[in-house]
Amino acid sequence: MAYFRIDYYSDALHRAASFEALIPNDIRTDIPREKTGYEDLPMRTLFLLHGYTGKAGNWVPEYLAEKYNFAIVMPSAENSFYLNGEATGHAYQTLVGEELVGYMRKTFGLARSAEDTCIAGLSMGGFGAIHTGLAYPETFGKIGALSSALIVHNIAGMKPGTKDHTANEAYYRGCFGDLDTLLERDENPEVLVRKLKEKGERIPPIYMCCGTEDFLLQNNRDFHAFLTAQGVAHEYHEGPGRHDMAFWSEHIVHVVDWMFQ
Amino acid sequence: MAYFRIDYYSDALHRAASFEALIPNDIRTDIPREKTGYEDLPMRTLFLLHGYTGKAGNWVPEYLAEKYNFAIVMPSAENSFYLNGEATGHAYQTLVGEELVGYMRKTFGLARSAEDTCIAGLSMGGFGAIHTGLAYPETFGKIGALSSALIVHNIAGMKPGTKDHTANEAYYRGCFGDLDTLLERDENPEVLVRKLKEKGERIPPIYMCCGTEDFLLQNNRDFHAFLTAQGVAHEYHEGPGRHDMAFWSEHIVHVVDWMFQ
Amino acid sequence: MAYFRIDYYSDALHRAASFEALIPNDIRTDIPREKTGYEDLPMRTLFLLHGYTGKAGNWVPEYLAEKYNFAIVMPSAENSFYLNGEATGHAYQTLVGEELVGYMRKTFGLARSAEDTCIAGLSMGGFGAIHTGLAYPETFGKIGALSSALIVHNIAGMKPGTKDHTANEAYYRGCFGDLDTLLERDENPEVLVRKLKEKGERIPPIYMCCGTEDFLLQNNRDFHAFLTAQGVAHEYHEGPGRHDMAFWSEHIVHVVDWMFQ
Amino acid sequence: MAYFRIDYYSDALHRAASFEALIPNDIRTDIPREKTGYEDLPMRTLFLLHGYTGKAGNWVPEYLAEKYNFAIVMPSAENSFYLNGEATGHAYQTLVGEELVGYMRKTFGLARSAEDTCIAGLSMGGFGAIHTGLAYPETFGKIGALSSALIVHNIAGMKPGTKDHTANEAYYRGCFGDLDTLLERDENPEVLVRKLKEKGERIPPIYMCCGTEDFLLQNNRDFHAFLTAQGVAHEYHEGPGRHDMAFWSEHIVHVVDWMFQ
Repeated sequence: MAYFRIDYYSDALHRAASFEALIPNDIRTDIPREKTGYEDLPMRTLFLLHGYTGKAGNWVPEYLAEKYNFAIVMPSAENSFYLNGEATGHAYQTLVGEELVGYMRKTFGLARSAEDTCIAGLSMGGFGAIHTGLAYPETFGKIGALSSALIVHNIAGMKPGTKDHTANEAYYRGCFGDLDTLLERDENPEVLVRKLKEKGERIPPIYMCCGTEDFLLQNNRDFHAFLTAQGVAHEYHEGPGRHDMAFWSEHIVHVVDWMFQ
Repeated sequence: MAYFRIDYYSDALHRAASFEALIPNDIRTDIPREKTGYEDLPMRTLFLLHGYTGKAGNWVPEYLAEKYNFAIVMPSAENSFYLNGEATGHAYQTLVGEELVGYMRKTFGLARSAEDTCIAGLSMGGFGAIHTGLAYPETFGKIGALSSALIVHNIAGMKPGTKDHTANEAYYRGCFGDLDTLLERDENPEVLVRKLKEKGERIPPIYMCCGTEDFLLQNNRDFHAFLTAQGVAHEYHEGPGRHDMAFWSEHIVHVVDWMFQ
Repeated sequence: MAYFRIDYYSDALHRAASFEALIPNDIRTDIPREKTGYEDLPMRTLFLLHGYTGKAGNWVPEYLAEKYNFAIVMPSAENSFYLNGEATGHAYQTLVGEELVGYMRKTFGLARSAEDTCIAGLSMGGFGAIHTGLAYPETFGKIGALSSALIVHNIAGMKPGTKDHTANEAYYRGCFGDLDTLLERDENPEVLVRKLKEKGERIPPIYMCCGTEDFLLQNNRDFHAFLTAQGVAHEYHEGPGRHDMAFWSEHIVHVVDWMFQ
Repeated sequence: MAYFRIDYYSDALHRAASFEALIPNDIRTDIPREKTGYEDLPMRTLFLLHGYTGKAGNWVPEYLAEKYNFAIVMPSAENSFYLNGEATGHAYQTLVGEELVGYMRKTFGLARSAEDTCIAGLSMGGFGAIHTGLAYPETFGKIGALSSALIVHNIAGMKPGTKDHTANEAYYRGCFGDLDTLLERDENPEVLVRKLKEKGERIPPIYMCCGTEDFLLQNNRDFHAFLTAQGVAHEYHEGPGRHDMAFWSEHIVHVVDWMFQ
């Protein structure tokens, strides 16, 4: 499993940036890879998005990458919710959905079609996977969203000078834009779904899961209900667990099975 | 010259972060270090701040560190101007002036007194060195500022929806706060100088330099004039050159001589 | 959990080298560390040795380090068996037992007494932990050895031009020296034990474990029997499992409990 | 300039290994690359070999890579002289000439023909460039050799138990094999030249240079004379300077001009 750390100039962020990637293309001849049938397929690519407070590389389902013969691209997006804020250089949606996809294509020849390209994440990264996947439905074939921070209804209308248990209004405004109009803008994944439906465009299949003890459970149930009401193909799973690595380690297996099997 | 890359949880940034450090404490017995007399002194520390679009490690005056026996700490502060913005986690002033100083003290036993601790930077990092040094005058013994982006007068009063050649108003507001009141607030280094003078507190000596072809020349001359008018001890040097590495490679030598000799 | 990657000049190896370290000294205020009572103790240090084909960082029992408040130092020792070979620069015993211990002391103030310093490893690193710990009994307080490659009896007397399933005679000779005299030399941990006993010196307590399906089981049983015959205090545990990460992930918990509790 | 650090399993070394690469394929739109005409050519690749005591990344002629639009691959080969020693895993010739070339081809689509692929190095890496280039004349289009450690005549016949100012006989034997027969074997670049001539095969053009104060000057003059006597196309340059970075920084410009112009 070759592991890449890549420092480059990010035009989206207007600065030097880094991302990491795992590409299972080195061959260990002394411990041959177990035959799965997938190793003869062209290598597919998963964009894997970290959560709030996280960074590239703190969650790498390595053995799954080898099993299904896919590469993992791990952006570092700080606490951006993977959105394009108003400020110069706060273009994290562009970073993942355009810049890194384009960079992987030209540098490694990977992620060249939606069929070969998936996106997944946990918590803030689950939101990012849903939002980025819906913003670039021709780029990402499938979306995996674990314990997603689908919080737009919580923060819509939040007043300057206030904060919730995670962050203050200035922070959310920097990520999501004007919080009074948030629900009507593209930063709200529901808006993206409605627009894709209106235009009759492809909506990537979505796999959602959430722990029954997760503080984001209701948010996930609400988005599940929204997708159902909209007739959007998706899977939704709940299971015992909290908002922690134990739940994610268990459920990423199912997400990846669903994506790559 | 031992080179450290350190990934840690930054409380200031509310997320995983990285910084780099160079500590000249490994001994190469086959090529003995040239005797300078400084190698017997306790190791001093320079906090070295990158410019706009930069990151830790893209400017490392290694041979000077060995000559004068000092460590270099290199934060990565994105395009933050090393200030505390209003948004949760945008606390880059705290990152450098408190968190990293504290971390170096407890982890390495370095930077324990102002006498042992200097701060320098180029362009945005020159602004950062001046501002951070003035914000923590008990922490930093000396300030080195090359081609500093002393731009508060340029952006004060900037209107929403506008931008200059570098960035837009939303970006500057995220870094500097309300741009209408900027000149009166602590984000303006002049305010820090005036407050220190009023309180009769120590102002760290400052070494400024700028190229005569630099687009920031007038800004540097203006701050030099301000310091002179205020009676603040400082050195100010101009020389042929533009806003580029050629100028900085030449002048960091003088900055470091002034700091550590 | 702060993670360090350190590039430095290794005098033992006569070249630039790297090691990694995990030091649980960053504070995540939003998710306070669970109180264990150990966080108030001075930070102890574990030197953790990788196996054949491995390198620093491919086995990091992070949560245990936080629980018991110890740092982990991870050398990269290639396929050296952590021994000093005859060739210039092949001084891996010195690298771990002297150079890195000394570097941690002077740089971080860690590992200053045997009480604060342990050594452990798996497979080739289990051999390394036993051998290095016995070679520096004043430096290492305790030794943890998982599935150890205690192979000196297998390779003693190996003939030039031959090889076993792992490597050829030239390789073993490069690590262990003359294979005809190996059993009588300090590269054989039994020799170190006998010498320490003769001199009446301290022998660090040893914790050994091995899986019952491990191809090295008999080697571990033999060394256990040797220690018993010599009256050396040690623990020896077998459990279901093979020579793989599943066994090591389970048993490192017991090793660390024994070391740091 | 995108910088890659790649950790992978090296079959040649029988262990986890790392290399670094610089690929100038990121676009900095705010500071457009100076037009050179080369940026429209397919990207070529330079394998750049470090010297004794060095490692990947301690010598990166970055601005030249951008000027001529070539990637740089930087192996870490310890103090191996880039040769295949007898011991299992000591296959550094294979590492550079086969494994890394193959890996760059399949991972990045680079280095696909001799026309696109050059090799250069300094000191031990200059020897490595000459030797590896001659060992794989179909792979490497051109060879650049700075201050090369062409020492086979110095160490041939060296006796066990002896050493020179750099290393001992056991070390040299580990790299070069039996020192009594060294001059007749493929580890001697002269043997490779003679064999290629006998078989009428392509010999890559060679650019050699050495400082007139370099302790390796006579060795370089001797190999230059050998190439001349053999009628092998090459350039040979001497200039003021010692065996140090000042000489290499100056002369790598000429080497790269010759290679890529």
